[in-house]
Amino acid sequence: MSGAAAHAEGIAPGFVAGGLACGIKTSGAPDLAIVATDDCTAVSAAGVFTSNLVQAAPVQVSKRHLADGRAAAVVCNSGNANAATGERGRADARRMCELTADGLGIASSDVLVCSTGLIGIPLPMGPVEAGIPKLCAQLASTGGMDAARALMTTDTVPKRAAARAGAATVVGIAKGAAMLSPAMATMLAVLTTDAAADARDLQRALGTAVSTTFDRLSVDGARSTNDTVLVLAGGRSAAPTYGDLVDALTEVCGSLAEQMARDAEGATKFVRIRVVGARSQADALLAARGVANSQLVQCSLNGGDPYWGRVLSELGASGAYLDPERVDIAYNGIVVCRDGIACRHDASSLAAQMAGRDIEILCDLRVAHGEATVLTTDLSHAYIDENRRTS
Amino acid sequence: MSGAAAHAEGIAPGFVAGGLACGIKTSGAPDLAIVATDDCTAVSAAGVFTSNLVQAAPVQVSKRHLADGRAAAVVCNSGNANAATGERGRADARRMCELTADGLGIASSDVLVCSTGLIGIPLPMGPVEAGIPKLCAQLASTGGMDAARALMTTDTVPKRAAARAGAATVVGIAKGAAMLSPAMATMLAVLTTDAAADARDLQRALGTAVSTTFDRLSVDGARSTNDTVLVLAGGRSAAPTYGDLVDALTEVCGSLAEQMARDAEGATKFVRIRVVGARSQADALLAARGVANSQLVQCSLNGGDPYWGRVLSELGASGAYLDPERVDIAYNGIVVCRDGIACRHDASSLAAQMAGRDIEILCDLRVAHGEATVLTTDLSHAYIDENRRTS
Repeated sequence: MSGAAAHAEGIAPGFVAGGLACGIKTSGAPDLAIVATDDCTAVSAAGVFTSNLVQAAPVQVSKRHLADGRAAAVVCNSGNANAATGERGRADARRMCELTADGLGIASSDVLVCSTGLIGIPLPMGPVEAGIPKLCAQLASTGGMDAARALMTTDTVPKRAAARAGAATVVGIAKGAAMLSPAMATMLAVLTTDAAADARDLQRALGTAVSTTFDRLSVDGARSTNDTVLVLAGGRSAAPTYGDLVDALTEVCGSLAEQMARDAEGATKFVRIRVVGARSQADALLAARGVANSQLVQCSLNGGDPYWGRVLSELGASGAYLDPERVDIAYNGIVVCRDGIACRHDASSLAAQMAGRDIEILCDLRVAHGEATVLTTDLSHAYIDENRRTS
Repeated sequence: MSGAAAHAEGIAPGFVAGGLACGIKTSGAPDLAIVATDDCTAVSAAGVFTSNLVQAAPVQVSKRHLADGRAAAVVCNSGNANAATGERGRADARRMCELTADGLGIASSDVLVCSTGLIGIPLPMGPVEAGIPKLCAQLASTGGMDAARALMTTDTVPKRAAARAGAATVVGIAKGAAMLSPAMATMLAVLTTDAAADARDLQRALGTAVSTTFDRLSVDGARSTNDTVLVLAGGRSAAPTYGDLVDALTEVCGSLAEQMARDAEGATKFVRIRVVGARSQADALLAARGVANSQLVQCSLNGGDPYWGRVLSELGASGAYLDPERVDIAYNGIVVCRDGIACRHDASSLAAQMAGRDIEILCDLRVAHGEATVLTTDLSHAYIDENRRTS
């Protein structure tokens, strides 16, 4: 497979990756992934982590290993979050880094580590001890999607996205189908680029990209213990402008966030809550999150019911400033509420729109010019079924 | 029926009440209720209303009519919220007060008005115009539970509670089965007492009672447009001490809040989230609300799964201060997480507790001495079914 085809499939030129089933998941599905620079040198790296006070062991270890702004590899497991596992959990996360470092002939402090799965259960280290050396031996420039598949938990499809940054490419793989909420959406993503980038620029650009993409995704209001977005910049291509770097990272993160919402547990609708005319961007975001996080709005969406009264009520409870008698609300462009009360509309066109999978709820507060969009889904029986028992 | 039996059933001595089906609900179920002083005199009255910026027309009208701290009657309808109905809605709410005033021979400004039901649909005034005069003619000291039944929307049982305040009695009726959330739980409640009370004392006492009862109930995080708690103090009995008044109002409001959680839409579990050891009471409340509002915790409860990892994660995301490695979590007294990690416990005893209806999740943050309890429920298929279509 050519380099271009490889990076179209999960990693940038200059990187290798792979995934396999080591036995953490009893199902036998892939559960171990590694992404590394192809010559095992440490390169500029950056990361954004969960804002939850309860941080999984791998988050604690990765933050420490990223302190110098450099990394050569990322090792990830699915099937166990290694969260709420105390000192033993940290030792296990460090051991994952050591095993990867030994397998690749690099320093342990140049390895970042991510875990995703159930909280509170010690990581089964037997499969990990056997799996990492085996995986290190089979990394390839064509292994990006194997890595993406090994990140999956309840995801039904692997997630990838790519964008150009000047002469370089930014590629990302990710997982995430529940515990998806703002302030670092709950997920793992590993981005690679062949671009040259200073680590501090890379960190700042990643933070900017995350703030308008993963942080604008809210499926169930749950911020997990393991949220991590990492980027490694290999440097084989010339440094793009800072603006091009931000744009490319934003495009990749935005696409991955949208893929997560589209694959969210049990979801039958993909929903954009767009608030315009707010007093400020912050107010627009508050209002959009209030609507997106509403269990009742999500139930209406599940039923294909354009019950705008609940949307208006959530806007009013969101903390954003509004005059209830100036608010307009539209579903897929069909205005159903004008000046805060019902208005005439074509009910059959609206019903046809509501039957589709993609819904945009546009809320115009008509106060000033603040705008924000948050992605969400409906709430279905299948979501409950997925989450009512861990075993 | 004796006075004692009557007030045991929904209103205090010195009040009359009634309910009937006027035709707002197409089902033919009762949808109109009135509570009034038995001699039609205005007495001390107080109210607490939704904190939502979007306030239903009856909330706007009642606030104005309560400005003088006096009222003689409360008229309520179910089946339509008269919310997001603009100027027409306010005219309809005022008309409900006028019709009641005419029927009882009192001033319109001494009538308070409440509505509950769907948002955004104009109130059908034909049934209301015919119903209120008819209902005014049949109020009785035994009509409290008829009034309670006429408040019901998706409630499966009418709700009432009573408590002593010195020599006097405080009685309350209420409705509420969804859109139940803190910062004024989403519901209507009408309390009456034969106690004498200054209107300002009554307002302060009601605010205190609501802050630790209805405001500690969170089923679905939704603050409605119509939340209202009213109290009328008839004054036939001697004034209780202020402390006794607060205690009696708190007892009645607390019982009604618990009845709402027990009757919440689709709920199969009645859940107390109790946080202790927090840095402050405010922090404890933040943490308890974070857990109570968690869709994922509610899904686990639906499955009877004591998945404490989600509880710990929500505590960490709540904004309350904690050290993740000091937190203890217990379900119905069985400690499953100690110092932030799993601990040995009797799994069969725990399974037996989780199979029951009443669950208490105790979270000890071990930081300081702040405590708070929030009531919630599980999240079920039936909740979604109840809320996915309005028609």
